[in-house]
Amino acid sequence: MKKRVLVIHGPNINLTGEREVGVYGKETIDTINEDIRNWAAQLGLELVEIFQSNSEGAIIDKIQERRHDVDGIAANMGAYTHYSIAIRDAIASVKLPCIEVHFSNVHSREEFRHTSVIAPVCAGVVCGFGKYSYLLALEGLSRIM
Amino acid sequence: MKKRVLVIHGPNINLTGEREVGVYGKETIDTINEDIRNWAAQLGLELVEIFQSNSEGAIIDKIQERRHDVDGIAANMGAYTHYSIAIRDAIASVKLPCIEVHFSNVHSREEFRHTSVIAPVCAGVVCGFGKYSYLLALEGLSRIM
Amino acid sequence: MKKRVLVIHGPNINLTGEREVGVYGKETIDTINEDIRNWAAQLGLELVEIFQSNSEGAIIDKIQERRHDVDGIAANMGAYTHYSIAIRDAIASVKLPCIEVHFSNVHSREEFRHTSVIAPVCAGVVCGFGKYSYLLALEGLSRIM
Amino acid sequence: MKKRVLVIHGPNINLTGEREVGVYGKETIDTINEDIRNWAAQLGLELVEIFQSNSEGAIIDKIQERRHDVDGIAANMGAYTHYSIAIRDAIASVKLPCIEVHFSNVHSREEFRHTSVIAPVCAGVVCGFGKYSYLLALEGLSRIM
Amino acid sequence: MKKRVLVIHGPNINLTGEREVGVYGKETIDTINEDIRNWAAQLGLELVEIFQSNSEGAIIDKIQERRHDVDGIAANMGAYTHYSIAIRDAIASVKLPCIEVHFSNVHSREEFRHTSVIAPVCAGVVCGFGKYSYLLALEGLSRIM
Amino acid sequence: MKKRVLVIHGPNINLTGEREVGVYGKETIDTINEDIRNWAAQLGLELVEIFQSNSEGAIIDKIQERRHDVDGIAANMGAYTHYSIAIRDAIASVKLPCIEVHFSNVHSREEFRHTSVIAPVCAGVVCGFGKYSYLLALEGLSRIM
Amino acid sequence: MKKRVLVIHGPNINLTGEREVGVYGKETIDTINEDIRNWAAQLGLELVEIFQSNSEGAIIDKIQERRHDVDGIAANMGAYTHYSIAIRDAIASVKLPCIEVHFSNVHSREEFRHTSVIAPVCAGVVCGFGKYSYLLALEGLSRIM
Amino acid sequence: MKKRVLVIHGPNINLTGEREVGVYGKETIDTINEDIRNWAAQLGLELVEIFQSNSEGAIIDKIQERRHDVDGIAANMGAYTHYSIAIRDAIASVKLPCIEVHFSNVHSREEFRHTSVIAPVCAGVVCGFGKYSYLLALEGLSRIM
Amino acid sequence: MKKRVLVIHGPNINLTGEREVGVYGKETIDTINEDIRNWAAQLGLELVEIFQSNSEGAIIDKIQERRHDVDGIAANMGAYTHYSIAIRDAIASVKLPCIEVHFSNVHSREEFRHTSVIAPVCAGVVCGFGKYSYLLALEGLSRIM
Amino acid sequence: MKKRVLVIHGPNINLTGEREVGVYGKETIDTINEDIRNWAAQLGLELVEIFQSNSEGAIIDKIQERRHDVDGIAANMGAYTHYSIAIRDAIASVKLPCIEVHFSNVHSREEFRHTSVIAPVCAGVVCGFGKYSYLLALEGLSRIM
Amino acid sequence: MKKRVLVIHGPNINLTGEREVGVYGKETIDTINEDIRNWAAQLGLELVEIFQSNSEGAIIDKIQERRHDVDGIAANMGAYTHYSIAIRDAIASVKLPCIEVHFSNVHSREEFRHTSVIAPVCAGVVCGFGKYSYLLALEGLSRIM
Amino acid sequence: MKKRVLVIHGPNINLTGEREVGVYGKETIDTINEDIRNWAAQLGLELVEIFQSNSEGAIIDKIQERRHDVDGIAANMGAYTHYSIAIRDAIASVKLPCIEVHFSNVHSREEFRHTSVIAPVCAGVVCGFGKYSYLLALEGLSRIM
Repeated sequence: MKKRVLVIHGPNINLTGEREVGVYGKETIDTINEDIRNWAAQLGLELVEIFQSNSEGAIIDKIQERRHDVDGIAANMGAYTHYSIAIRDAIASVKLPCIEVHFSNVHSREEFRHTSVIAPVCAGVVCGFGKYSYLLALEGLSRIM
Repeated sequence: MKKRVLVIHGPNINLTGEREVGVYGKETIDTINEDIRNWAAQLGLELVEIFQSNSEGAIIDKIQERRHDVDGIAANMGAYTHYSIAIRDAIASVKLPCIEVHFSNVHSREEFRHTSVIAPVCAGVVCGFGKYSYLLALEGLSRIM
Repeated sequence: MKKRVLVIHGPNINLTGEREVGVYGKETIDTINEDIRNWAAQLGLELVEIFQSNSEGAIIDKIQERRHDVDGIAANMGAYTHYSIAIRDAIASVKLPCIEVHFSNVHSREEFRHTSVIAPVCAGVVCGFGKYSYLLALEGLSRIM
Repeated sequence: MKKRVLVIHGPNINLTGEREVGVYGKETIDTINEDIRNWAAQLGLELVEIFQSNSEGAIIDKIQERRHDVDGIAANMGAYTHYSIAIRDAIASVKLPCIEVHFSNVHSREEFRHTSVIAPVCAGVVCGFGKYSYLLALEGLSRIM
Repeated sequence: MKKRVLVIHGPNINLTGEREVGVYGKETIDTINEDIRNWAAQLGLELVEIFQSNSEGAIIDKIQERRHDVDGIAANMGAYTHYSIAIRDAIASVKLPCIEVHFSNVHSREEFRHTSVIAPVCAGVVCGFGKYSYLLALEGLSRIM
Repeated sequence: MKKRVLVIHGPNINLTGEREVGVYGKETIDTINEDIRNWAAQLGLELVEIFQSNSEGAIIDKIQERRHDVDGIAANMGAYTHYSIAIRDAIASVKLPCIEVHFSNVHSREEFRHTSVIAPVCAGVVCGFGKYSYLLALEGLSRIM
Repeated sequence: MKKRVLVIHGPNINLTGEREVGVYGKETIDTINEDIRNWAAQLGLELVEIFQSNSEGAIIDKIQERRHDVDGIAANMGAYTHYSIAIRDAIASVKLPCIEVHFSNVHSREEFRHTSVIAPVCAGVVCGFGKYSYLLALEGLSRIM
Repeated sequence: MKKRVLVIHGPNINLTGEREVGVYGKETIDTINEDIRNWAAQLGLELVEIFQSNSEGAIIDKIQERRHDVDGIAANMGAYTHYSIAIRDAIASVKLPCIEVHFSNVHSREEFRHTSVIAPVCAGVVCGFGKYSYLLALEGLSRIM
Repeated sequence: MKKRVLVIHGPNINLTGEREVGVYGKETIDTINEDIRNWAAQLGLELVEIFQSNSEGAIIDKIQERRHDVDGIAANMGAYTHYSIAIRDAIASVKLPCIEVHFSNVHSREEFRHTSVIAPVCAGVVCGFGKYSYLLALEGLSRIM
Repeated sequence: MKKRVLVIHGPNINLTGEREVGVYGKETIDTINEDIRNWAAQLGLELVEIFQSNSEGAIIDKIQERRHDVDGIAANMGAYTHYSIAIRDAIASVKLPCIEVHFSNVHSREEFRHTSVIAPVCAGVVCGFGKYSYLLALEGLSRIM
Repeated sequence: MKKRVLVIHGPNINLTGEREVGVYGKETIDTINEDIRNWAAQLGLELVEIFQSNSEGAIIDKIQERRHDVDGIAANMGAYTHYSIAIRDAIASVKLPCIEVHFSNVHSREEFRHTSVIAPVCAGVVCGFGKYSYLLALEGLSRIM
Repeated sequence: MKKRVLVIHGPNINLTGEREVGVYGKETIDTINEDIRNWAAQLGLELVEIFQSNSEGAIIDKIQERRHDVDGIAANMGAYTHYSIAIRDAIASVKLPCIEVHFSNVHSREEFRHTSVIAPVCAGVVCGFGKYSYLLALEGLSRIM
């Protein structure tokens, strides 16, 4: 049976392709989502849902809602990465392997982006590969789920 | 006339009984809410509402909405305890006695859980008694409202 | 053609006139909004919308939604000023001049209110003039948009 | 058989009713002790001893001396709360549930009172309810001993 | 009777128009002072003096000297903003509303420019609007003096 | 009627004249106490008691015991100066003017001796004059009691 | 033409399979190197060398030596990750995309392992997938070289 | 032969009697200077000069200028106490006993007033006795010069 | 003539064998004291006294009392190690070689146990060898007294 | 045409030869200035002025005044090195290469002397060579102007 | 069968007897090594090797190489004690009891020498006894191996 | 007799001319070494050796090896400047005047490059003059050796 995966895009990720093009590139989130769906299929994964929200609470709701439907999570929590202990607790609560994903290498950006409150409860972290960070996260999940 | 109380459960509290059982115990939030209702009744309090939300904004909305309906608040703000200055400001704005409640003793957990941005505007704090923390908060409120 | 402006009131600003009267004064947000509308008109600005929300996500949604409709933003992010990197990223993403506004002089209040995570991506800051902070922000915007 | 409890009042608590009346109220420690005895009786607890001392060493001696006589401790360590690692070690050594108690909400006082070196080895914390903090601590103990 | 105002330019402001043109623009301090005089007149304010000095002591002397001659101060303390407690004390001593002004948005510059030792004793802060920061400060003063 | 004074010598002060002679001089505490008695007499003060103890608790006991017998305290708390919040609370509790005294200039010694937890609740501080620090403290007390 | 890759294993990685088996697994570095060679082949990469050393200087020598022979580096710098500014400078000097790799999720280990001095000059980071971290790093390199 | 003394009043001390009356009292600096002259005479000291300046440089000039004319200095450096390393170096350079003086107990005021960069090179410190702080400093100097 | 030694056990050491058995082992302090006496004899040392107290003041009293009776001290100050500057000063005052001893390796325990305020005035430190730490301290003393 | 240089001596440098002889040597500033003039001549530089002042403001005035007269600056800012952001801004404003000079090796003195707020806007730093530090600074300037 | 021990001397230890004689004494490392060999023999230990290196990598190599040949390690890591996480990991990897040894009492030297990154993975620490620190470490090892 | 000098280039300096050309310039280390040899000759110094290594241990070995052959050292320790306490100890051990050299002005680069653990044991520091930093260091050495 196929392993099931949830992909979460956090705040402002929906503007990818339009915002800070130097950092995130020019591809829109829609074409990137298309890639993500294709990669999941190639990896033999069932991509249950790609969810985007700017709301911390909605992201927690989604993690909770899908907790019995999926075997792993690939999540780019955007700015919430750096302070949302509530999302951290949600990830820890559902006991699913979660991969922290970032388009950019957060460690070569502002100091405050070097700290993740979410990483300690994740299984792994992938950052710096642009849209391919999601590909690597999915492949990584496929190996450890 | 009975004193009126609002109970707030913050993010991830709805998974109690399922998540981190070692820390929070196996009772579900529903049976705990039943206990809370009974304790309020025994203490002669009117329990106006038990509200749970994973959303910081929704919790602030609720505090504002109920500010003329209640005489005190018992609130387990979960992870928001540690960084939600917005909730802190909401509590300070409504000028009601609020008790900070936690199931676990947050001081014997991770360092970042030792800091509460909410406690300074609360009337008191109760933590470490499992579900009975709510009982103590209600009893405390009944003495100081 | 008139320059178009969005005014944002963050968490708990809707209680102005009722909360911490010593700090914020007794005028309600409604009469202040009336003033803001009049000032905008006097300055020859089109005030596209005055938006208030207690929700970090809703504020980000609004900034994104209005990004092509306005030429500048005057925003009192309230408590989110001090920790919402997600709102910071939203402001940076839309590439519009944004003015950080506060009723009170945040620098003469608690230490934690001296730090703004939003100011570095804003064009300017105005604080300490009560409701007139909005007037100054609008006038400032009219000069730099 | 009745559960047995030790109540400890730390330094300067003996001046309650006389010192910093705005913070601690006007009731003397004697009438408060009377209340504590009554509450213990009502809760079906055997109150083995109420002990007050200004001396860190004497408090440790007492915890050690009573370690086989009681099932739990309610302790207001006063200023020692913030730096007495020796008392912390004594509490940890005797392996009894101990509740940290404070009259005032220490979190709305000076910064240095927000840190407790004792809380991490206690079962729970109650603060901010004036003399009723002891009542809640006893009730809490009665639930978890 | 007209409200009277003192404008202070701190260290290196006299080189404006010549120094760090990318940050401060190309207009010289003389033409900016002309604008300031015009704005004051338009706002119905009496501009008692525009004073510039590179010397901390001379700035304090001026604040003391003019303390009975003016109803408010608009002051760009330049680098002294970040460490001159002596100027802070001078402002606090004279009990006049003082507005902290900066050409640039100091919060998007070096970390050490984010801290103001003067702001806590000022009535308000305006920064980031180039020369218009002085206009806004004057307008703000006219509203609160 | 004569003003009454309590002099307290904290831990290790009893070894003065023998210990760290380079810092504290060669006079013994007995001859210094003789001087203190003479100075008090010359200043028209009643020196109720000179008390020395190495025990934090005993010092608190003494402050409490003498709180109705004296009009002021001159206290060299020795090392307790730097961490005894319990002594701080005792001083604050008795509402008597207390002068912090040190033989040596603590500010030219180790970094940790630059911080006093007691000074904020004292009326004044005198340090660096050897035994004459006590003389100055008594004279100062005589002026402000 | 095939893209060429250098894989570097830092200090103590040679003991993998033997040391801290709970963290790193039981496979030896030799079998893992076999996997790495196979993955590189499958990804169409030329694996120029797999180099292991416990010496900071030898790692820098290798990076310099191979700087014209390879198009990218996948490097698990082990403990040097956290303090070797010399290795950081070597990576920055050679201007090749380098991927920081770790077997374990360093963010769920000791605090000091959360800081990487190397990440800011790397193109990306992959951690937490056991030996598959190398696979992901190679795949990531293949996408961005 | 009489010992000779220099008294220095730092920034804003000239406004004493007018500024922050709650902290500094209502006596003007002129009447206080009269007291200082009288005390010096009573103590058998030659008061060479009482110097006030708001300028850090002028204070250093004075210390240097008078270095061969006096045997000791009593100096209230006001705000410069907390950051003027240049004044510190001037005091250290002239190798005269200098007493740091403050009207108020700086340790019960803002946190930043608890640090003195000057104290480590002074002979002693006196603070908290209002104008009598100068008396004590003179008396202290008379004992140690 | 035999060298004379004082052994001091600080707070809670008297419960050794009963408390935190995983850390300190199951042997009681009495049997350990027996070992210490034997080791001292074998090393040709005169063990003047083994002293245990939970009181900081009593420990200081003892150090002072015995200062002319012994040639060296082996002291396990327990929790006082981390904050008792008063004990530090006592050790420095008596000018005897003192060895800081701990049963456990304090550096592999909580962060706050890594700091010793006493070590800087001791001759040496021995920790981590269980009861044998005392043996090594005595042997070390025998070499350096 | 000869390159033109300004040499600045900051606060207390005028006492060189008299103050802290162990650190700065016994040569007076006058004979050192003579050396500086000779070295400049030997290096083919025009030494426009050697300026000394104890006043931060006067140093800034001088830098501004001479900004079109010289090609480079060699400046020993003394204590201002460590906190004068105003001097830093002056140096940055005039866009001339400035060399930070110190007689002593500031890094082997007090901790606070290890930080320079001026160095980041200087071209280079020379310290530790006594008067020869000026020689090296001049020679360095001659190479980079 | 004899217990086998490895002794490691870290960087600069080879210059003992020549360098900082005040701290380390005048005996050369060769005569000290002779003592170490004798002590090991007297303690019935097989001293497998005494290894000195200035290279972090070489020390790690040696620990790995000897990991099956010895039952314990006595190591004076010199300066690496304070920052070599790589050596720490090597010690942790080989799962042998390691004793951290220092000639001097590092706690009475510079602040940065008070921190050991190695101690947390060692069994014990001995410092301050000169060459006898090695003797104690060997004796300690003989008790706990 | 000629004074003898050792020049040390630390990690990555061998790539000068190729790496970060904007910072270090385009000249190769070979031509710079040629300049260094010429400057030494002109200054009448015997340049015993120019040594480059990427290895901390090898640099220490060299310092020790050459300690009797030279009268001074000019050393650009590169990244080791910021953390190699082992190299610091080596320099301190050999008791030779050492000059810390850097091509670039490290104070205008990343924050972590502002701290040198080596400078406190050096005689002086020269930075920011490109290759001429070595010239100045040699000239400085020639004055103080």
